[in-house]
Amino acid sequence: MLTQRATELDSADPLAPLRDRFTLPKGVVYLDGNSLGALPTAVPAAVEDAVHRQWGTDLIRSWNAHGWWEAPVRTGDAIGRLIGAAPGQTVVGDSTSVQLFNTLLAAARLRPGRPLLLTDPDHFPTDQYVADSVGRLLGLEVRRVPAREAAAVLAAEGDRVAVAAYAPVDYRTGELYDMAALTAAAHAAGALVHWDLCHAAGALPLHLDAIGADFAVGCGYKYLSGGPGAPAFAYLAHRHQADFDHPVTGWHGHAEPFAMSGTYTPAPGITRARIGTPPLLSLIALEAALTAYEGVDMEAVRTKGLSLTGFFQDCADELLDGLGFTMATPRDPERRGSQVALRHPEAYPLVAALTARGVIGDMRAPDLLRFGFNPLYLSHADVLHAVRELREVTVTGAYRDPALQERPTVT
Amino acid sequence: MLTQRATELDSADPLAPLRDRFTLPKGVVYLDGNSLGALPTAVPAAVEDAVHRQWGTDLIRSWNAHGWWEAPVRTGDAIGRLIGAAPGQTVVGDSTSVQLFNTLLAAARLRPGRPLLLTDPDHFPTDQYVADSVGRLLGLEVRRVPAREAAAVLAAEGDRVAVAAYAPVDYRTGELYDMAALTAAAHAAGALVHWDLCHAAGALPLHLDAIGADFAVGCGYKYLSGGPGAPAFAYLAHRHQADFDHPVTGWHGHAEPFAMSGTYTPAPGITRARIGTPPLLSLIALEAALTAYEGVDMEAVRTKGLSLTGFFQDCADELLDGLGFTMATPRDPERRGSQVALRHPEAYPLVAALTARGVIGDMRAPDLLRFGFNPLYLSHADVLHAVRELREVTVTGAYRDPALQERPTVT
Repeated sequence: MLTQRATELDSADPLAPLRDRFTLPKGVVYLDGNSLGALPTAVPAAVEDAVHRQWGTDLIRSWNAHGWWEAPVRTGDAIGRLIGAAPGQTVVGDSTSVQLFNTLLAAARLRPGRPLLLTDPDHFPTDQYVADSVGRLLGLEVRRVPAREAAAVLAAEGDRVAVAAYAPVDYRTGELYDMAALTAAAHAAGALVHWDLCHAAGALPLHLDAIGADFAVGCGYKYLSGGPGAPAFAYLAHRHQADFDHPVTGWHGHAEPFAMSGTYTPAPGITRARIGTPPLLSLIALEAALTAYEGVDMEAVRTKGLSLTGFFQDCADELLDGLGFTMATPRDPERRGSQVALRHPEAYPLVAALTARGVIGDMRAPDLLRFGFNPLYLSHADVLHAVRELREVTVTGAYRDPALQERPTVT
Repeated sequence: MLTQRATELDSADPLAPLRDRFTLPKGVVYLDGNSLGALPTAVPAAVEDAVHRQWGTDLIRSWNAHGWWEAPVRTGDAIGRLIGAAPGQTVVGDSTSVQLFNTLLAAARLRPGRPLLLTDPDHFPTDQYVADSVGRLLGLEVRRVPAREAAAVLAAEGDRVAVAAYAPVDYRTGELYDMAALTAAAHAAGALVHWDLCHAAGALPLHLDAIGADFAVGCGYKYLSGGPGAPAFAYLAHRHQADFDHPVTGWHGHAEPFAMSGTYTPAPGITRARIGTPPLLSLIALEAALTAYEGVDMEAVRTKGLSLTGFFQDCADELLDGLGFTMATPRDPERRGSQVALRHPEAYPLVAALTARGVIGDMRAPDLLRFGFNPLYLSHADVLHAVRELREVTVTGAYRDPALQERPTVT
């Protein structure tokens, strides 16, 4: 009956036409869009124009003629629409690591005298490294408190907490946390919240303004499909912008950049979160990629994402039973991002065997198979095909082929 | 006689064939390659391949299949050959601002107990802002000492100096400083030297290893012609790598990135200076751009650069006499980078008028006209044409056209 269900779900899918906004290779089911999103159809022409006409022909004049100077804030606003941020609060540029460092340090400076940074022991590694680095530079203790325990810690000793730095979606298990509740708990304690949206932006409706978020960052190359290493974004709530006091003070964030003053005077508004010259070819690709979201309702994206992940779980229940898998991702839709992770002791060769058959997911040590679901370009038929292939490589033992031992791919 | 000299110089130019390695728009003389280098001919195909085949078709597998993971160090080594750095000391990624911050802070940590950072009051603004930021974070005093006085200050109170942060070429005047002498003066005092090579890399032979440089950064989009906002590079001398203790600790610099550990253990070698996922489209463009230097002797580049800038000065002497210009760039070849700057009270509209005639330079407030000379794609005929056009817009008053008042371009 799974085939029939897939067909029915796909027939009733209002987002099905969006698949045409992406160029996907034939014979591939791509479940790694939570690591590197697929190529949006609008990108190649935009990049070609950027290379030939903008760079090659108009050269330095493109800063004005083609809006290069405004691109970080313009593209930031385009992302803002997807994360519940009114214009003027989101800026694009530099890597996620840099944005994390720059905004987390600035956030901590807004709560002087509070000696604690909270972060998640299950946070993506860079988030933890950066929290430790910021803690060391500012003389703060970094305490690792799991997301589900953070509200209790904030209630008990929140008056000592400067910033709580969390992600709404666990990058390994896909578990979704309650952003509004954690934000409220931090604010009740007088602390600030710093969100890493890498595994949420573009896949779920986010409501940064509505929940009163303080700071957030996220990457451009996962669900947003901005291309490999697409620049990251940073969100600064309007109310914090005038006091945003960041460490990586590049001239693009200066109030009068062309005055070439030797003293840093931060620009007003979100512009002060700009750093240096952004990687424009990558940034222009990201901006073009975001047009895939034109006219798309993020609530509809969420509905379809839950349908895809829920269907994956149903298929796994039926087809993978007794094959050594366990479900790592919550079944409760309110606690599930747009990703499903399975545990299996042979995760690594299983993912390699799947990839060899054109079903692309990834793995995380030691035992996690990760499958990401971008509702803009995936169907329920894709989901069913993927689980059937996973069953096939498991029951046939195809995953034991020594030729499949390649290095893990990159998140 | 200037026409004849230009013809003779170009006829004898061994680098003249390199112009074919660049795509330049017809009717343009491009003297702003010190701000955004021209498009190398090898780039468009490389970027198209990166978009269609690597991203679009091979997707996440490209991290392995197309060498994405190794690109920052591989491209770093390609730049290393141009700056006198043996392999394994140069890495590419993130913006110049970020690389400046990350390496300057790490450098200062190597000299604990020394309370001073020296930097140049004529340094590019970001360099000064970043020095101030690092000083604030580490509790150091930032003292602005002009490059030509730095050796004396180092001799007098160098035992209090942690790091001297300078550029070999003044970004406004094009004046060239003696890197070896300043490095030696710093080392004699037990201090470290941090070099910003933005206005030197690719234009001059640099000898980082030979002069014993400690740290350096530079951008990829000026003389290196890597494209708008091309990622920057950082150089860490081998002897400092094991103790390099930097603040922006991204997972790409981890000893075992795929172990996804929550504790930062820096990788050995130059890899520890990696930060996060680099902007790969921009990075691949830069890597392709660097092939323009294949087989090119940097000493020959220097010889031609001095010939171009010297000829520009000669043409200016003859054609601009009495028109209100003064020469801001030293005439001594040993003190001149690959750039010539003129002062004129109407610098801004003059540059705009020149641009309207297809001679592209730029200006820096309040009164500087800047002309950069990339020896790979410019000829002496270009130089003569540019000065003649500058004379023309000046004597005819063409620069007074109100339509020419556009915003200055970006360095």
